[in-house]
Amino acid sequence: MSEAAQTLEGWYALHDFRTINWTAWKQADAEKRNAALDELQSLISEWKAAEDAKTGSTAFYSIVGQKADFVFMHLRETLEELNALEVAFNKTTFAQFTTPAHSYVSVVELSNYMAQPGTDPLENPEIVARLKPILPKWRHICFYPMNKRREGNDNWYMLSMDERRAMMRSHGMIGRQYAGKVKQIITGSVGFDNWEWGVTLFAEDALQFKKLVYEMRFDEVSARFGDFGEFFVGNLLDGDGLNQLLSV
Amino acid sequence: MSEAAQTLEGWYALHDFRTINWTAWKQADAEKRNAALDELQSLISEWKAAEDAKTGSTAFYSIVGQKADFVFMHLRETLEELNALEVAFNKTTFAQFTTPAHSYVSVVELSNYMAQPGTDPLENPEIVARLKPILPKWRHICFYPMNKRREGNDNWYMLSMDERRAMMRSHGMIGRQYAGKVKQIITGSVGFDNWEWGVTLFAEDALQFKKLVYEMRFDEVSARFGDFGEFFVGNLLDGDGLNQLLSV
Amino acid sequence: MSEAAQTLEGWYALHDFRTINWTAWKQADAEKRNAALDELQSLISEWKAAEDAKTGSTAFYSIVGQKADFVFMHLRETLEELNALEVAFNKTTFAQFTTPAHSYVSVVELSNYMAQPGTDPLENPEIVARLKPILPKWRHICFYPMNKRREGNDNWYMLSMDERRAMMRSHGMIGRQYAGKVKQIITGSVGFDNWEWGVTLFAEDALQFKKLVYEMRFDEVSARFGDFGEFFVGNLLDGDGLNQLLSV
Amino acid sequence: MSEAAQTLEGWYALHDFRTINWTAWKQADAEKRNAALDELQSLISEWKAAEDAKTGSTAFYSIVGQKADFVFMHLRETLEELNALEVAFNKTTFAQFTTPAHSYVSVVELSNYMAQPGTDPLENPEIVARLKPILPKWRHICFYPMNKRREGNDNWYMLSMDERRAMMRSHGMIGRQYAGKVKQIITGSVGFDNWEWGVTLFAEDALQFKKLVYEMRFDEVSARFGDFGEFFVGNLLDGDGLNQLLSV
Amino acid sequence: MSEAAQTLEGWYALHDFRTINWTAWKQADAEKRNAALDELQSLISEWKAAEDAKTGSTAFYSIVGQKADFVFMHLRETLEELNALEVAFNKTTFAQFTTPAHSYVSVVELSNYMAQPGTDPLENPEIVARLKPILPKWRHICFYPMNKRREGNDNWYMLSMDERRAMMRSHGMIGRQYAGKVKQIITGSVGFDNWEWGVTLFAEDALQFKKLVYEMRFDEVSARFGDFGEFFVGNLLDGDGLNQLLSV
Repeated sequence: MSEAAQTLEGWYALHDFRTINWTAWKQADAEKRNAALDELQSLISEWKAAEDAKTGSTAFYSIVGQKADFVFMHLRETLEELNALEVAFNKTTFAQFTTPAHSYVSVVELSNYMAQPGTDPLENPEIVARLKPILPKWRHICFYPMNKRREGNDNWYMLSMDERRAMMRSHGMIGRQYAGKVKQIITGSVGFDNWEWGVTLFAEDALQFKKLVYEMRFDEVSARFGDFGEFFVGNLLDGDGLNQLLSV
Repeated sequence: MSEAAQTLEGWYALHDFRTINWTAWKQADAEKRNAALDELQSLISEWKAAEDAKTGSTAFYSIVGQKADFVFMHLRETLEELNALEVAFNKTTFAQFTTPAHSYVSVVELSNYMAQPGTDPLENPEIVARLKPILPKWRHICFYPMNKRREGNDNWYMLSMDERRAMMRSHGMIGRQYAGKVKQIITGSVGFDNWEWGVTLFAEDALQFKKLVYEMRFDEVSARFGDFGEFFVGNLLDGDGLNQLLSV
Repeated sequence: MSEAAQTLEGWYALHDFRTINWTAWKQADAEKRNAALDELQSLISEWKAAEDAKTGSTAFYSIVGQKADFVFMHLRETLEELNALEVAFNKTTFAQFTTPAHSYVSVVELSNYMAQPGTDPLENPEIVARLKPILPKWRHICFYPMNKRREGNDNWYMLSMDERRAMMRSHGMIGRQYAGKVKQIITGSVGFDNWEWGVTLFAEDALQFKKLVYEMRFDEVSARFGDFGEFFVGNLLDGDGLNQLLSV
Repeated sequence: MSEAAQTLEGWYALHDFRTINWTAWKQADAEKRNAALDELQSLISEWKAAEDAKTGSTAFYSIVGQKADFVFMHLRETLEELNALEVAFNKTTFAQFTTPAHSYVSVVELSNYMAQPGTDPLENPEIVARLKPILPKWRHICFYPMNKRREGNDNWYMLSMDERRAMMRSHGMIGRQYAGKVKQIITGSVGFDNWEWGVTLFAEDALQFKKLVYEMRFDEVSARFGDFGEFFVGNLLDGDGLNQLLSV
Repeated sequence: MSEAAQTLEGWYALHDFRTINWTAWKQADAEKRNAALDELQSLISEWKAAEDAKTGSTAFYSIVGQKADFVFMHLRETLEELNALEVAFNKTTFAQFTTPAHSYVSVVELSNYMAQPGTDPLENPEIVARLKPILPKWRHICFYPMNKRREGNDNWYMLSMDERRAMMRSHGMIGRQYAGKVKQIITGSVGFDNWEWGVTLFAEDALQFKKLVYEMRFDEVSARFGDFGEFFVGNLLDGDGLNQLLSV
């Protein structure tokens, strides 16, 4: 048996993708639409308050293409809080004008391949901050789930810890070249959702998503061992953006 | 031909996942909603009575994310009883506010790789209790189906009994380290549903699901031979939780 | 080129799985429901008459879980008759309260791996009876489709006739151990539906499905060459069962 | 790089599978149904006229099982004509009682593995007739799409022309044994639809579909290199058949 | 680690496939239909103006078969503009008579396998024109997504730059033979959508799509390393074509 890497976990994450029923939204009268928007704004304010109190964080982006119209990415301390957030949204008037498009349940994770022996990572404030991150409000988001492959000779989980550590180090080097351009949040979903990890990227220039993911694909970790799910890409939905999106 | 492991079977299991139609639920008047809730509570009371009489057991959890809103996991002596349970629910008023999201049919199973020759496991009260278990009311549930892989050199069913026994022993050791943290119910579904087994885990701390499943993935049984389906994770729905979920 | 096994074919088979729209059924008034049930009973009587006349056979079972609520398995001499049966059902009032869930088109098949040279199997009344079988009314049904695998070194269709015959003989031995417990109907669907064969099992004790299919999975024919589709399991729907299922 | 086989192309093909909404059809009043049928008959007459003028051909069959209720297979000189045919149907009253079930876009193709050097196949009237065929009105139809496999050692497109030619010759020999029993139309769909080829078979005895496809599966071309999609099987819908199908 | 090819990116692309709800369209009164068409024409005029101003380009084609009824292919400078285009369409009256069928998000890409060392490709006006192309108005369109395979010995991303360059050169040679017959636009979608690339082809003769893609399939790059998604094929929708399509 191969030794499992140690992992550190922080906040739970729920990516909640929704599609707008435009016909219904347009057919609603202005009063109903305004009430729905007010209620949605209240919810967003609550989420903002939680972020200010550092009890969680929420990102809100539109999604380009037909996979969804927008996504809420919520971070919270417990699965119960995440469930309460989605139920609260489901009970709003605005939710009646949307349909579920996709979701993902995971937990912020730092893998400890680079751990220094004899130190306690949870005493490192930088690491604690990465486990409970305030999500950036950058222009673009990219989300995709992934597995480490277990096929024939390309079986990640049959490699030794040393082999995996060496490959992950090289992998991390690529990521570091994008520091300042791409902010990356890795969430683990083994036991929570259909893939082993979720990857959420933020950037001011969406092209950096392509450059980062493409460059990594030539890295042995991705080339031989990475299996990828659906990709979602979107644009920041701030207050103005939301009003513009929903004005009809 | 390779020798099949002996298995012991207990109660049949039905995992019944449902999604709430929130728009319809909100549009119903309070009277109809109350009547629907009363009827649902009656059903839950019947299930509780069956559990008290040790003729079955039922777990009731919300599901995080969009795969479903809640799951009933029912255990009963026969497939006819399980079918009667789902039909009874389908006929309730509350069911009209839900849509089927997913289901799984299986039977509680103990594989006998560790059997002591010359003993009758069904005379062991501990084993009998594990075949007809009262489901725990712990905070979290995790469910996923799985197969043993049959691909090229990774063909579980072409291994000798000794090879399989040695790997299952190592696998069991990991599980034992989580005793008290994760309660695991294995159900066999060969001949009943699309995968060979269902795995249902219960924990007070959901992170233990991730730690257990991730650690096992490095074990040869999972690394080379485990194929996994969709994962569902949820939170206990006790009386208060149910009222809170459905109050609008 | 490898030699194809000779096959004998009998009646065509249609497995017709349906789901009940419970909300619509409950909302219909008693008069409409009674008329629908009467019409359904007439159809069932016609099918029974065809069975008495040995011009076909029909099995009617509920399905456990959400894949469907019930299945009709029809056997008839021609594809036109099968199509007429499904169209006749589609035109009933009861059909308006159901939606199609799944179907499978195939033909009863005996593979001739064990044929005695110099004999004409169609002069053997036992074989003729197996080609045009009256379906048992046992408590449980199990249905699944399957392929013989053609992947890398596990390519059934590249094996010699002798290799295939030896493996099928061993396979048949397992089946014979379940004589009296499991009745098995093999239908071929090459050219008719998405898999190469359908397997329909009947048993008084549903656990025998699991034991048979699991034991066979260790047999080389299944372990290396069997690919399996969705499994459906259900309970006999006799007159009482049908009334109970549909009374609201 | 391996040499591509030369191909000859004739008429474009559209397989247009549809499902009938029986509830809506039954609820329509007789007048509306009659008007819908008259309009459908007009369309069918137009298609017949095109066939008489040898500017195209259309086959019309019911489909057994739930995949669809019927299929139109249209052959025409251009993709614009095919699109016009489907749009014309979509605008009929009858189309309002149907939903799209599946479609396939391809072009009649003869592969030139057997070409005689120094001859121009398009001067051969038999070949020209095969490129623009009038579809038979035999009792049964079978349709399925297929790819030539490109996996590991089973990569059709990495074989030499000679290897492919030898295998295709053996493959063709099987087909020839079914002359008079099965009429086969191969259509190429590289660049037009999801698979590389569509295969449409016609027979008076549906069992010949099974016998042909099963026998071919032992041929190396299919055994090692054939990947197959969904199979559809159906019965000829002539004027009487159509009236019977749609009378309620 | 293998060296990634340099890529140049231009305009972002959104392929937006839609299906028409014919029943609703026919049931709308002429006034509503005319208003919807006028509004759609305004949108098309805006897109034309953007094309004239060289700030983007749009192609508009019908799709043959049931996958969709038509596609808009939009090119714009930013993801925000693309999102605004789809939202603007979603808010039109005509959009209420359509449903989303498929979409694809990517960016025009030139891979730099053939780059001349010491030159700046962005100073080459021909290259800049290819990065921000005005889409041709040829009779036919073909779209499909693709990946470079990473399986066992067929792992594109584990090849050396030299191996990849040699294969891409041969691949490019085939494309060049179709110059004037097929116009090809490659868009990269790593980080944006589910496949690595989108391929959009334009031709006056649709058969050239088949001939090009089929010939390339024998090229090692495609034969061993190409995985392909769904193919869509369609006909140019100019003003007349659109009026004809939507007149009922």
